[in-house]
Amino acid sequence: MGRTSDARSRLIESAFGLWFARSYSDVGVNEICAHAGVRKGSFYHFFPSKSDLALAVIGEVERRFQTEIVGVYLEGPDVPPLERLEKLIEHNYVVAVAGKDESGHVYGCPIGNLATEMATQDEVLRGRLDTFFDHWAAAFTALLDEAVARGDVPPHDTRTAGLSLLAYVQGVSVLVKTRNDPSLIRTIGPTIVAIASAPAAVAA
Amino acid sequence: MGRTSDARSRLIESAFGLWFARSYSDVGVNEICAHAGVRKGSFYHFFPSKSDLALAVIGEVERRFQTEIVGVYLEGPDVPPLERLEKLIEHNYVVAVAGKDESGHVYGCPIGNLATEMATQDEVLRGRLDTFFDHWAAAFTALLDEAVARGDVPPHDTRTAGLSLLAYVQGVSVLVKTRNDPSLIRTIGPTIVAIASAPAAVAA
Repeated sequence: MGRTSDARSRLIESAFGLWFARSYSDVGVNEICAHAGVRKGSFYHFFPSKSDLALAVIGEVERRFQTEIVGVYLEGPDVPPLERLEKLIEHNYVVAVAGKDESGHVYGCPIGNLATEMATQDEVLRGRLDTFFDHWAAAFTALLDEAVARGDVPPHDTRTAGLSLLAYVQGVSVLVKTRNDPSLIRTIGPTIVAIASAPAAVAA
Repeated sequence: MGRTSDARSRLIESAFGLWFARSYSDVGVNEICAHAGVRKGSFYHFFPSKSDLALAVIGEVERRFQTEIVGVYLEGPDVPPLERLEKLIEHNYVVAVAGKDESGHVYGCPIGNLATEMATQDEVLRGRLDTFFDHWAAAFTALLDEAVARGDVPPHDTRTAGLSLLAYVQGVSVLVKTRNDPSLIRTIGPTIVAIASAPAAVAA
């Protein structure tokens, strides 16, 4: 890649890392430029505003999410669907342990963090984050449809249940970040399998 | 109450409202003082720092939470425990509808919002919010213990399950805020009863 697109990528990487570690409001364009080694004039060449940079960050997170989470765990074909949920929980635990070893903190979910902080303050960001959640819930729904087709769980409203699984993952992320203890993922994370396995009240 | 303690209460009320509507980082001491009609010099008479004001706000939220949520829904004695969970979901829906009618936004949970934004940035706040979550999970655990004692659900690890119910409530709050649509509470909220009713995987 040429120098120009490299600067753009560095801005996205810096913004992602700084926002994830702290918060969107706490880290401004000046600090992101300094961290990325990009002059502020160049910043506005790539992004008209901080909010536009945030959209690019969300796009990059979604690209990685589709490859590293959806492709491996939610759609991964060689393992039964409910077992893939268990593996996803363990993956989240390993990632949280590595993150805490490096920084001293559990950062939570970059999408949930940004949505919680900015949903009432930036309507464009809120809409984009809501779309991300829609895609995420749809991936859970597809996994549940597969479990229903295999007879692993009874037929039910998998669209609602997919949203419920996403809500659970998001809530675990909030509690684990607040306790700053990755081990809580292993304690309450597996409940997601119970939610996926017992959809009675969901379908009611 | 005298004028002095009234100023303190106004600062707590203003900070709660402004932070809940936007975010902790986005609203500083100057704006809180202006909103409360309190001079900045007086602010530091009551609170050594913004963080100390946040601790007072959390204390006030917990006081109301114990009265309005724990006392009415989680411990309320006249309705079976799982039905109380359903009533709590409906209460959350009604509150979210009223809030959106007034402001145009769903604000989510003041404790979850603050925890998500500040857990990596203020260790004292993180610890206080974690304690709030511990009390909240314990109230869910007590409700589940009651359901077990009545034979409504099988015996299980109600301590872990209480944390799972709290995680679910927090995650629903994140999704509903991001969609800015209270009706999502009625769609996915009732799943909490399924989680409370089917603790097999939790106890495993």
